[in-house]
Amino acid sequence: MLLVLELLLEAAGIAIHANQTLSNTATRKFGLTMMCTLTGKPTQGGFAESMVVDQKFVVKIPDGMSPEQAAPLLCAGLTVYSPLKHFGLNKSGLRGGILGLGGVGHMGVKIAKAMGHHVTVISSSDKKREEALEHLGADEYLVSSDGEGVQKAADSLDYIIDTVPVVHPLEPCLSLLKLDGKLILMGVINAPLQFLTPMVMIGRKSITGSFIGSMKETEEMLEFCKEKGLTSKIEVIKMDYINTAFERLEKNDVRYRFVVDVAGSKLSP
Amino acid sequence: MLLVLELLLEAAGIAIHANQTLSNTATRKFGLTMMCTLTGKPTQGGFAESMVVDQKFVVKIPDGMSPEQAAPLLCAGLTVYSPLKHFGLNKSGLRGGILGLGGVGHMGVKIAKAMGHHVTVISSSDKKREEALEHLGADEYLVSSDGEGVQKAADSLDYIIDTVPVVHPLEPCLSLLKLDGKLILMGVINAPLQFLTPMVMIGRKSITGSFIGSMKETEEMLEFCKEKGLTSKIEVIKMDYINTAFERLEKNDVRYRFVVDVAGSKLSP
Repeated sequence: MLLVLELLLEAAGIAIHANQTLSNTATRKFGLTMMCTLTGKPTQGGFAESMVVDQKFVVKIPDGMSPEQAAPLLCAGLTVYSPLKHFGLNKSGLRGGILGLGGVGHMGVKIAKAMGHHVTVISSSDKKREEALEHLGADEYLVSSDGEGVQKAADSLDYIIDTVPVVHPLEPCLSLLKLDGKLILMGVINAPLQFLTPMVMIGRKSITGSFIGSMKETEEMLEFCKEKGLTSKIEVIKMDYINTAFERLEKNDVRYRFVVDVAGSKLSP
Repeated sequence: MLLVLELLLEAAGIAIHANQTLSNTATRKFGLTMMCTLTGKPTQGGFAESMVVDQKFVVKIPDGMSPEQAAPLLCAGLTVYSPLKHFGLNKSGLRGGILGLGGVGHMGVKIAKAMGHHVTVISSSDKKREEALEHLGADEYLVSSDGEGVQKAADSLDYIIDTVPVVHPLEPCLSLLKLDGKLILMGVINAPLQFLTPMVMIGRKSITGSFIGSMKETEEMLEFCKEKGLTSKIEVIKMDYINTAFERLEKNDVRYRFVVDVAGSKLSP
């Protein structure tokens, strides 16, 4: 069985992975950081070798999926898969929107397409149009400040996955949703977002959010990605490149995830 | 068949009713204002006698329910019943919160109790404690500014029906909701409400809203209220009292709905 380490760095766009054969019958000492439980209380873990991880927190990586592919799926893939599954949006024929095309957003497009959805990428500028439509397979591309385009697409989407991690207006998103549509927030933003109550009351729309997913959903998601042949766009780096990687992250210069191969470093078990 | 008029005035806390025998087989000329459809587009109706109302917009009032009781239920009762039904919250054993004890809120307490819920009334002050607990049958009373009380009740409610029609903080409500809890907004507020994204992401909580309900739900709700013996607290007035009623409304001096008996007035068919 392979174990993939997904460290806190992953939240900033860097995934660290290592693989390790684990006994299937007992818990083992191993360094593993679970980012957060659903209760919102951070675990007391770390990546010290002294941390004991119960096997219920160990996921099986499907045969044939490389660890460097599995690593970012454990965050970006699961973050998108979990709410689509939970809210019953994992059926074909739906119309979805992906707001923001970063690490989570690009997996959002791929997973939603693999679920059989008509996918609109919504972005603040026109810069990622080609990437969205030609490389990721989105069906439509909408610039959020394009009032006419937004109005034309009003009341058309079953859901929007909102990956934007900074303050942004919710009105365009809410207006794009159809009756009972869901705006699913995934960006931890350190200032409040605003909305007008009639924007949710009329059409019974929901503003909700999601944070990672369950262990069960993690294994389901990996199987789903394996079955559908989905991969994350990654750049594999070695440990000594981490500082440069962080500098590039600050400049938004990665498509879409750095994966750090810790083999040979002190983190390597 | 009885027809109950529910006029726009009702939105301001005044219900006007009249009853009229209607043919069951054809549409009839009759004055009826539907406040709004779910699309948010106001109907072009009025209460002129020349307006034609299709029978699909006519509801059957259960035998034995008085028109003055049916009238406010068509707004306050339905406003609460519809989302509880839609979101699958009409089963017993849930824990609900009612924020704001006005015309809608007091029916919220009664309907939620009749569904078998443990009901907490949440209010900005202590003023309505006795009313909530002793007259309306709520189980608990929480002052929203009581930090300790709110913290003690954190993560405990399946839903909160928020009837407050002015800007108010959502943090206390969101913190009271448990995993997958729903904050259901019912107040049309002319300035934005704010929230922090982690407040919905962690615990996958939803901010949603609802506006009136369907014709099917209207009949269901009336049957439900009849079966459970629920009545709205009303003050029946005559047409010539309307100006005084409005003055009293401005002072919040009505518990909880004025119902205007139009018999003998120009509105009377």
